[in-house]
Amino acid sequence: MKKIGVITSGGDAPGMNACLKSVVDMASNLGYTVYAFRRGYTGVINNDYVILNREDVSKIFNLGGSIFMSGRCLEFYQLSGPSKAAKVLNKLGIDTLIAIGGNGTYNGANELIKLGVKVIGIPATIDNDVYSTDESMGFDTAVNNAVQMIINIQSTMRANERVALIETMGRLAGDIALYSAMASESDILLVPEDKKTEDEILELVKDEIERGNSSPTVVLAEKQFDLNKLNKRIQDETGKECRSIILGYMQRGGSPTVNDRFLAIRYGVSAVQFISQGISNVVIGVRDDRVVTTPIADAVNLKSNFRADLYGLFKELHRMEH
Amino acid sequence: MKKIGVITSGGDAPGMNACLKSVVDMASNLGYTVYAFRRGYTGVINNDYVILNREDVSKIFNLGGSIFMSGRCLEFYQLSGPSKAAKVLNKLGIDTLIAIGGNGTYNGANELIKLGVKVIGIPATIDNDVYSTDESMGFDTAVNNAVQMIINIQSTMRANERVALIETMGRLAGDIALYSAMASESDILLVPEDKKTEDEILELVKDEIERGNSSPTVVLAEKQFDLNKLNKRIQDETGKECRSIILGYMQRGGSPTVNDRFLAIRYGVSAVQFISQGISNVVIGVRDDRVVTTPIADAVNLKSNFRADLYGLFKELHRMEH
Amino acid sequence: MKKIGVITSGGDAPGMNACLKSVVDMASNLGYTVYAFRRGYTGVINNDYVILNREDVSKIFNLGGSIFMSGRCLEFYQLSGPSKAAKVLNKLGIDTLIAIGGNGTYNGANELIKLGVKVIGIPATIDNDVYSTDESMGFDTAVNNAVQMIINIQSTMRANERVALIETMGRLAGDIALYSAMASESDILLVPEDKKTEDEILELVKDEIERGNSSPTVVLAEKQFDLNKLNKRIQDETGKECRSIILGYMQRGGSPTVNDRFLAIRYGVSAVQFISQGISNVVIGVRDDRVVTTPIADAVNLKSNFRADLYGLFKELHRMEH
Amino acid sequence: MKKIGVITSGGDAPGMNACLKSVVDMASNLGYTVYAFRRGYTGVINNDYVILNREDVSKIFNLGGSIFMSGRCLEFYQLSGPSKAAKVLNKLGIDTLIAIGGNGTYNGANELIKLGVKVIGIPATIDNDVYSTDESMGFDTAVNNAVQMIINIQSTMRANERVALIETMGRLAGDIALYSAMASESDILLVPEDKKTEDEILELVKDEIERGNSSPTVVLAEKQFDLNKLNKRIQDETGKECRSIILGYMQRGGSPTVNDRFLAIRYGVSAVQFISQGISNVVIGVRDDRVVTTPIADAVNLKSNFRADLYGLFKELHRMEH
Repeated sequence: MKKIGVITSGGDAPGMNACLKSVVDMASNLGYTVYAFRRGYTGVINNDYVILNREDVSKIFNLGGSIFMSGRCLEFYQLSGPSKAAKVLNKLGIDTLIAIGGNGTYNGANELIKLGVKVIGIPATIDNDVYSTDESMGFDTAVNNAVQMIINIQSTMRANERVALIETMGRLAGDIALYSAMASESDILLVPEDKKTEDEILELVKDEIERGNSSPTVVLAEKQFDLNKLNKRIQDETGKECRSIILGYMQRGGSPTVNDRFLAIRYGVSAVQFISQGISNVVIGVRDDRVVTTPIADAVNLKSNFRADLYGLFKELHRMEH
Repeated sequence: MKKIGVITSGGDAPGMNACLKSVVDMASNLGYTVYAFRRGYTGVINNDYVILNREDVSKIFNLGGSIFMSGRCLEFYQLSGPSKAAKVLNKLGIDTLIAIGGNGTYNGANELIKLGVKVIGIPATIDNDVYSTDESMGFDTAVNNAVQMIINIQSTMRANERVALIETMGRLAGDIALYSAMASESDILLVPEDKKTEDEILELVKDEIERGNSSPTVVLAEKQFDLNKLNKRIQDETGKECRSIILGYMQRGGSPTVNDRFLAIRYGVSAVQFISQGISNVVIGVRDDRVVTTPIADAVNLKSNFRADLYGLFKELHRMEH
Repeated sequence: MKKIGVITSGGDAPGMNACLKSVVDMASNLGYTVYAFRRGYTGVINNDYVILNREDVSKIFNLGGSIFMSGRCLEFYQLSGPSKAAKVLNKLGIDTLIAIGGNGTYNGANELIKLGVKVIGIPATIDNDVYSTDESMGFDTAVNNAVQMIINIQSTMRANERVALIETMGRLAGDIALYSAMASESDILLVPEDKKTEDEILELVKDEIERGNSSPTVVLAEKQFDLNKLNKRIQDETGKECRSIILGYMQRGGSPTVNDRFLAIRYGVSAVQFISQGISNVVIGVRDDRVVTTPIADAVNLKSNFRADLYGLFKELHRMEH
Repeated sequence: MKKIGVITSGGDAPGMNACLKSVVDMASNLGYTVYAFRRGYTGVINNDYVILNREDVSKIFNLGGSIFMSGRCLEFYQLSGPSKAAKVLNKLGIDTLIAIGGNGTYNGANELIKLGVKVIGIPATIDNDVYSTDESMGFDTAVNNAVQMIINIQSTMRANERVALIETMGRLAGDIALYSAMASESDILLVPEDKKTEDEILELVKDEIERGNSSPTVVLAEKQFDLNKLNKRIQDETGKECRSIILGYMQRGGSPTVNDRFLAIRYGVSAVQFISQGISNVVIGVRDDRVVTTPIADAVNLKSNFRADLYGLFKELHRMEH
């Protein structure tokens, strides 16, 4: 009977626990044994694992975070990391390692593959920036969390006729900002895929105010601007109060949405099925609602596409013409 | 400048108001006038409408239900209904009527088309049983509502080690049941697309209990069984307490999820864009995440596909072998 | 060091797990050992328990239901039940048994007290019908759940201009109905503390319709009427469609509100503190936001007061004059 | 028939709209006319109002924020502000002004009272720092919002074994921090009512880590510390990663909880009843669940009491001994 390893790695994403449970349930159906390593690659290097059966994971499906901890393993990315990990996996007789995480995780996986380890990647990141899939696990939950918070913020901002400057997560990708802004009826959207100057933003805010909007909502993806500086300029140049809000880690946490539960199940089950069919060294994805695979070696070199069509739709609908 | 009519018709679905708002916003961008008729086709027949501008719909985006009421119009389906409606629309100079609803709504639309009225259908129904689209507006909200309730029910059922028999909506389609059962980790799933006898169900429940599950959850789509009778048999033949719960209208109501907000916007905007391009007599849909159209005449004759692949996945994962 | 027993008994209530955790944390601070019996009095009779430390309960605070199961123990209420239970507790050297539950639980506790067992009762029931406290743990969560569902139901009922007939839990007490109706702006409220005939209800519904309400909401506590019969009369005599909805177990489940978390902590900590002070055979309560105690022997004989002042307020505000 | 004025003033609080609606409904029952001024005292000074009937407020009960805007009116607090406002109210023939807000609002009211205007204050502020009541409207919603966010944050912090430093609102009062920390099982609580040094905080964090807590949660009320500096010290001196999160405006927004809906109704109805009874110049409150009044002149001079008993309970339960 095969032995399967599994890690959750990098930033955690809602659905990781549901995915882990699906791996264990499906593996158990096939008679496989599951070794769950703690703290991502760190646990592999340190031979720190627990063998899981159905009962052990019977209560984790709804939980956010990752019960086996997720983390970036600095040591792994140093010279000896991958070979240490490969030795541990060999010694334990692990057939294939399932790595649940994002792009950083696949880079690590790629190093292991070069050493002969078999790996299957599962896309789990709220940022939705994985090439191999239309949607990564955690994204829908993060956006639903963000939208709920933006709607709450809007109710108080409108009561005080303030401009709201709301920063979402997303690393280098504008997806969370785009989806959150669209679904919350925000007025102005700033994504790294279409950089704007502070002057341009000021014009957009003024346009909104001129159209009679007494409390415009600006949604921007992180790492683009100095929020305090932008806030001050908006106040100085529009004469309206402005408040800056960082949605932060509240986007990441919490019980997964139905959509992310589905991804978790489909990814987890498919990973085990692929192992049973002798498939490895791919990242799983869902394209057009069907499970697909991409070689990990390709996945680490390619960038996820920003939905320019939806961004265009937002701009047209909200008359964002600058 | 063109005049557009819009109705919400049939059972209401979360997202109808967001869709109506998107129609008005986009129409306003293009300089069109929007006539919203009250109570679906009833309002058309009775010349009962209001002209909407951006300001009128500025606060409806988040609301469940339909502010202009939705309803089945018995009179419309009688001999003179469609011709009365066509006369009203002609007299008002409506270019195209946007009909937001499900299959019954498209049947009505088809009658109007035969009389020379131009119509665009938008799929809005929690049942997800519209042929022309992968997903109808309202479905994701209904499933998320259902899953939240099932999880709550499970917490109390497990505390009392009872069997739970939970009925979802769905008319003739098993989609709500399938998605809800999968995302709530329910144990047994009964859909009209794969009919089972009471005896078979009893076997499935007994299998679960034999595997050590002290509180199995059975999710079943409506209209398949006499709940009270099935409940009694389960109690009598397993010796365990069983409780029947109808999720009912709580599935239908409430603020739409991000996914349904996106569908609402994309459908609403696309409908207006199609009108500006001279396209009509189609039902809009989203296939593989792209907006597509299907002739209404075809849509009314074809059935939506049940996701047999996902149903198979559920059965395999949950060892549902009878 | 003292040994403490703890059970959750009767219908489960949100907050039971948080309360159990607070008992364990506080007991651990004082160096006491906690014996948790499974399935209420059943576990005591059967010597079925687990010894809990801080680590064992570190992840249960947010969970609905009861991880040690709650249940009505038929055997306990038979002749030999209490004496069997008393023997087990004596043999284990349990100093005091903390019984988390409602009135039925206190009846059982009273039998144990007669046999020399020391017991402390903690009021946990969504029905809010415990004499010894202003508010029992679980009530606030149940009402918040109910209100969320009623608001969802109203959005769809209004879209179809239907009368909604919504049944809440509450056993013999109208509290859940009263608080849910008030906080959801329902129109008509039917509680067992002020019985009305079907004719009177019909008049109230007609009053609402005459005032221009096209979709009245009627909230009624369970066990008062034949819903189907009342539904039919409303439809026949008002000419409007009516839908009956049973909120059911969805009220009971789920993560506790802040208020119920506070009650859980205060009750759990106080119980342990009372034990350290040699106090027993009382039910804990909160009156005017202060922790108080009532002898269990009194608690089982007295009825909780219905808030006639708030009911009067509802009737006045909603012009419910029949 | 009497004329009643009403304003929402200062920071908005969930329940303001529900309260406004209750004022209008009750006033309408008594045949009074309601003048709602926009933007708090600003609208009074500028004679900017709308007369409200039942129909106008029929859809606002569930909404967060304040539909008539709330705001601090700088002009009002200048020399001529109160006399301008008094003149407007006199000219309109307003019998009594209902001022929904917090301490700043009562200061303004007190100035009006000196000029012969009759005012009734209603405590609405998430900070819970109003002397005249046990609980101000909006507080329960803010705490429930905060707890939901903290629980989400904890799920991701634990997955990465980080220290979380979470800042709540509260101005000068520690109530939101206290209730949020208690109900979220946070580990360390820092309130302005019991000031601690950075060194003491470091000791508390180290205590938690030594007890085996790999991801301590620190909740602190705003305006006490430089978050960045404290964060850095924690990282430097414990060797663990730490993240700072400001819950911010997400606490304030959103639909009110059942508790705040009750306060809104009771305050709104009572205000109108007091007016009908000739009572004025008081702030309404709820003490021990009964409606009480405090002269506004007293209310502005007295401070709300911090719940030292609950704070002591938190410290004992969480072994916070520094």
